[in-house]
Amino acid sequence: MASRIVAISGGVGGAKLSLGLARVLDPDQLAIVANTGDDFDHLGLRICPDLDTVMYTLADVNNKELGWGQVGETWQFLDALEKLGGETWFRLGDRDLATHIQRTTLLRSGQRLSAVTASLCAQLGVEVPLLPMTDDDVRTMVFTQSGETLSFQHYFVRDRCAPRVSGFEFAGIETAAPAPGFISRLTDIELGAVIICPSNPFVSVDPVLALPGVLEAMQNSSAPVIAVSPIIGGEAIKGPAAKMMAELGMPITAAGVAEHYADRIDGFVLDHRDVQMQSQIEALGLKVLVTETLMRSLEDREALAKAVLGFVEGWRTRQV
Amino acid sequence: MASRIVAISGGVGGAKLSLGLARVLDPDQLAIVANTGDDFDHLGLRICPDLDTVMYTLADVNNKELGWGQVGETWQFLDALEKLGGETWFRLGDRDLATHIQRTTLLRSGQRLSAVTASLCAQLGVEVPLLPMTDDDVRTMVFTQSGETLSFQHYFVRDRCAPRVSGFEFAGIETAAPAPGFISRLTDIELGAVIICPSNPFVSVDPVLALPGVLEAMQNSSAPVIAVSPIIGGEAIKGPAAKMMAELGMPITAAGVAEHYADRIDGFVLDHRDVQMQSQIEALGLKVLVTETLMRSLEDREALAKAVLGFVEGWRTRQV
Repeated sequence: MASRIVAISGGVGGAKLSLGLARVLDPDQLAIVANTGDDFDHLGLRICPDLDTVMYTLADVNNKELGWGQVGETWQFLDALEKLGGETWFRLGDRDLATHIQRTTLLRSGQRLSAVTASLCAQLGVEVPLLPMTDDDVRTMVFTQSGETLSFQHYFVRDRCAPRVSGFEFAGIETAAPAPGFISRLTDIELGAVIICPSNPFVSVDPVLALPGVLEAMQNSSAPVIAVSPIIGGEAIKGPAAKMMAELGMPITAAGVAEHYADRIDGFVLDHRDVQMQSQIEALGLKVLVTETLMRSLEDREALAKAVLGFVEGWRTRQV
Repeated sequence: MASRIVAISGGVGGAKLSLGLARVLDPDQLAIVANTGDDFDHLGLRICPDLDTVMYTLADVNNKELGWGQVGETWQFLDALEKLGGETWFRLGDRDLATHIQRTTLLRSGQRLSAVTASLCAQLGVEVPLLPMTDDDVRTMVFTQSGETLSFQHYFVRDRCAPRVSGFEFAGIETAAPAPGFISRLTDIELGAVIICPSNPFVSVDPVLALPGVLEAMQNSSAPVIAVSPIIGGEAIKGPAAKMMAELGMPITAAGVAEHYADRIDGFVLDHRDVQMQSQIEALGLKVLVTETLMRSLEDREALAKAVLGFVEGWRTRQV
């Protein structure tokens, strides 16, 4: 297949499908765009959790137990920082820290985040292009039902997603430019599909889709936009997506996710456990692929990637 | 003894005697002033090698094998940084890194280095006041015989002291103010002595003595200034002092050090191995104490501290 794929990813779940895609496509057939709305500055360092999770996963140095940080991570830095009275609520491993320090050093030298990411990926042997969604600062803010507004990492890590959410804002999004190469890949005549990985719709995917020009480019392209459900059997595999859906008054179902995306996508990948929702989702005007979407093993990641690519391929064939 | 002592220290050798003094004096009888001419910014972090060596030593968390960094130091950060293509010539341990990050965070929040140092010391249980020589930036530059000028850490760590030195400059010294409390301790009527620890005369002690007002305050005080020789039997116990003396055309002897300090001190502590130089040093107008100055054990550190304090005490008695 010569057509090109753009994958949009948040953290762990998105990284799993990104890895599957990277293993079944040539590096020049794929680009992965990662959410940077979770990024923040902490202890003087720029931390990009989703970008790092995808990068570490593609480089096979990710910590599979934790879902973040590097394999073989140790905590000497954090232990010493605690003794010095420093802020330790954000768990920075000794190896992970090197990424944040090197990134911050390169950013301070004047490089843009996309160039820095390319440099880090090259060092780690990652061949697939990995783009931050933007080089500009976009910061996801979480509105809570108590009336407090929290920065994303305060909500997510410090407060362990305990506050009940009422909505989100992506501060800075109006003036943020999609990273170099992002729009041109969406307008590429050889674009085969945009694949929205099974990531949190509200805080991982929506920021990417909300960037100026992204939705327009996707809508002007003949390539389908396909979302893979992050909800299976009424549960999120990882993270607070299901809790957020409940707090936002949405049904905690794959159909709820499909409805959230409905105006912005063409197809939806539904887990076979949720097959009873197929017609409900098709009624939204979406084509539906029903398949196994739970990715436990490396083979699962590749199998889902192949299934989604097959879905896309059939689409093209039907359209021609 | 009610009189108060100000000790001037560089890194390892100075830290050893500082620890000895801290163990035989009450915290309110002693203040230690550490050289900051070696400080530098690296990977976006403020690193203060001498201050940290003294602080770690007083807190008993120093790495005794390395002579720098913390006990139980590991190198995961540096290993990961190397894989990312980062600068690894300066060996930052995982635990040590916490100090640099916390210090840099506090400095960026607007605190001065002296306040930051006090905060770090308090967290580590160090009761003796430890002052950086100044809150301002002073940077020791090394002139080399090849004509190249090197920043101190490039000379010392990156180039492993290989370049032949021709002189030194303490950039910023003219406008640097001694840290709060430094001058007032020198002009304190209860000052018993200034003790120059066995540190490198050129790059550890000279920057402290070159700060505006320091020499004048010492000269206006009736308290003696005593230097402990860092050279024993024609060798430096640690560091490049002997190599520098050779390159500067000085005799590599304790007498050479005494002569270097002669105009600025009143007494000199000579190792018993160098007793044959006693009269030569006395001819410089200095009182001389001959004793064991090699500090291998904790007992050695305390014994030298007591010997130097006894030397000072006898001085006062004779003067009265």
